[in-house]
Amino acid sequence: MAVIYDRVALIGLGLIASSMCHAIRRAGLAREIVGYARSAETRATAREIALCDRVTETAAEAVAEADLVVLCVPVGAMEAIAAEIGPHLKPGATLSDVGSVKRAVIDAVAPFVPAGVHFIPAHPLAGTEHSGPRAGFAELFDNRFCILVPVAGSDPAAVARLADLWRGIGSNVDEMDADHHDLVLAVTSHTPHLIAYTMVGVADELRRVTDSEVIKYSAAGFRDFTRIAASDPTMWRDVFLHNKDATLDILGRFTEELFALQRAIRLGDGDHLHAYFTRTRSIRRSIIEAGQDTDEPNFGRSKAKKT
Amino acid sequence: MAVIYDRVALIGLGLIASSMCHAIRRAGLAREIVGYARSAETRATAREIALCDRVTETAAEAVAEADLVVLCVPVGAMEAIAAEIGPHLKPGATLSDVGSVKRAVIDAVAPFVPAGVHFIPAHPLAGTEHSGPRAGFAELFDNRFCILVPVAGSDPAAVARLADLWRGIGSNVDEMDADHHDLVLAVTSHTPHLIAYTMVGVADELRRVTDSEVIKYSAAGFRDFTRIAASDPTMWRDVFLHNKDATLDILGRFTEELFALQRAIRLGDGDHLHAYFTRTRSIRRSIIEAGQDTDEPNFGRSKAKKT
Ligand SMILES: NC(=O)c1ccc[n+]([C@@H]2O[C@H](COP(=O)([O-])OP(=O)(O)OC[C@H]3O[C@@H](n4cnc5c(N)ncnc54)[C@H](OP(=O)(O)O)[C@@H]3O)[C@@H](O)[C@H]2O)c1
Ligand SMILES: NC(=O)c1ccc[n+]([C@@H]2O[C@H](COP(=O)([O-])OP(=O)(O)OC[C@H]3O[C@@H](n4cnc5c(N)ncnc54)[C@H](OP(=O)(O)O)[C@@H]3O)[C@@H](O)[C@H]2O)c1
Repeated sequence: MAVIYDRVALIGLGLIASSMCHAIRRAGLAREIVGYARSAETRATAREIALCDRVTETAAEAVAEADLVVLCVPVGAMEAIAAEIGPHLKPGATLSDVGSVKRAVIDAVAPFVPAGVHFIPAHPLAGTEHSGPRAGFAELFDNRFCILVPVAGSDPAAVARLADLWRGIGSNVDEMDADHHDLVLAVTSHTPHLIAYTMVGVADELRRVTDSEVIKYSAAGFRDFTRIAASDPTMWRDVFLHNKDATLDILGRFTEELFALQRAIRLGDGDHLHAYFTRTRSIRRSIIEAGQDTDEPNFGRSKAKKT
Repeated sequence: MAVIYDRVALIGLGLIASSMCHAIRRAGLAREIVGYARSAETRATAREIALCDRVTETAAEAVAEADLVVLCVPVGAMEAIAAEIGPHLKPGATLSDVGSVKRAVIDAVAPFVPAGVHFIPAHPLAGTEHSGPRAGFAELFDNRFCILVPVAGSDPAAVARLADLWRGIGSNVDEMDADHHDLVLAVTSHTPHLIAYTMVGVADELRRVTDSEVIKYSAAGFRDFTRIAASDPTMWRDVFLHNKDATLDILGRFTEELFALQRAIRLGDGDHLHAYFTRTRSIRRSIIEAGQDTDEPNFGRSKAKKT
């Protein structure tokens, strides 16, 4: 594939940045990738594994002369980084990010974007529970969605160019308004994560069931919650603090539904339960049909025969 | 491996029974497997795919002369089946089941067990979201746990023999008291399932986010809930109706914790969130170390490089 940006600068070198690095290289989409991370330790690791072509000692250095700058730090850290790099951005460059929340990132970053720089927020819907510069792999974004959230007055050519990069990385690209993005993600990601964290926390605190029992017998369902409850605490703290309204809104709905089911159990209302469980089944089918999961038993964990 | 039971009768021919069939054959643990299912349709399918050696038209016929009878029907259907087959059980035979709840099954079945028959309830902790006679596969129980719940006065030799069968099928065998089983499962399976059903139900009912958006962007977390929320509605209705107290108890704890996190979000208490998310992370690590899951990104869904 052809080079899309001569020089790409990644600020923050964790799971997402390191995966972008591998994926951009796999497709030959940049002539040079420059990286910067806050800690000397992460910078040293990045150099040791030759993650980028160059790792700089300051963020300002990394973004100087870059045609694309991508902020790959937790949502709560975006503002300070933007303030630091703003004055050093090259005219005509594109500034993007990968934060899991969009309205708060726009509010935090936009004030520091100089005229002549294209600010195009983005969010790749892909991740694992691992973090840091060693966690990345080129295939992370393959067949996943990346949502671009252009702000008012975004240059269509700059948006199209960034979309080309994400497609080159393997993703399907969609565009969305920031508030709608935050609501969709509250439903599909943020609230499910909070609930998974809660369920795991409950199990952890129960003293009548020993820890080792919870762990031994986790394959009966609990296990599926623990993966998403193992994601980076800082990232998720920032997500909930910065997508507060939408998350609280969906949580309210969740609690309402849960109470209705709880009541059905208490009253022995089997019909209500059966009808509810029947309805949710069809959603699963649609997800498999949409190619967003496999139909293999056990998520393909064991090499089980396909049914 | 050597034959453990000359004739095994499976009552109900769904996911669990058909998997037992394949697994017992794989290891050569029975000389003959006889099966019975309620509907003519399931019996016809079982014959068509030659699931068992013989499919009978009545449950009584299936259990006559059987050395091991296993009830593989939903928990709420156990009592009627037990009443029907009780008089036809062979002296010295073992009667077992695979129900996901144990106290209620014991209360329902025990009254119909004639003297001289060994009643040994069991619960294999393995499943997929698929059901019916075509859903089974021999590897389902490999490296999973099967919990035996011997009742007062169970014959140790009969218990050891059933344990041998489950080990021969690939499982690790544990013993537990019925009430403790129901509590452990309420934590590791029943409550997580109810919560997953609720989350999927919420997404389904939201009209501000379209269905297609929920499905398209499900890989961000929601997807992991849909698999367990796609399990058989009848099976799960029966589980909740019959493990009511333990489930309501754990649900109460869950709601309490959820409210505390919700409050932390509302108040912007990042420290509380961060500490909570850090604690839950370690549980995940223990599950991987216990061999109850893999550490692969995306559950090994994509052929991603191992990190
Ligand atoms: N993981 C996912 O599933 C996922 C998916 C989509 C989007 N995202 C978003 O992607 C972004 C990065 O996530 P990630 O998973 O790549 O995280 P990660 O692996 O934990 O890496 C985070 C990076 O940000 C740096 N950082 C952390 N706090 C900082 C601060 N206060 N100031 C400056 N730098 C800081 C870290 O530097 P040090 O290494 O030096 O500490 C590290 O290089 C987040 O905004 C997240 O919301 C994540
Ligand atoms: N699936 C799991 O994840 C899992 C895991 C561990 C234990 N279990 C337990 O295993 C048992 C069977 O589950 P499964 O997953 O194998 O279910 P399944 O695939 O849905 O099969 C259920 C079988 O029970 C029969 N049945 C249903 N209702 C009946 C009734 N009222 N009277 C007589 N027969 C009836 C069905 O007959 P027809 O086909 O003729 O309708 C079918 O053969 C349940 O007690 C469940 O709690 C399930």
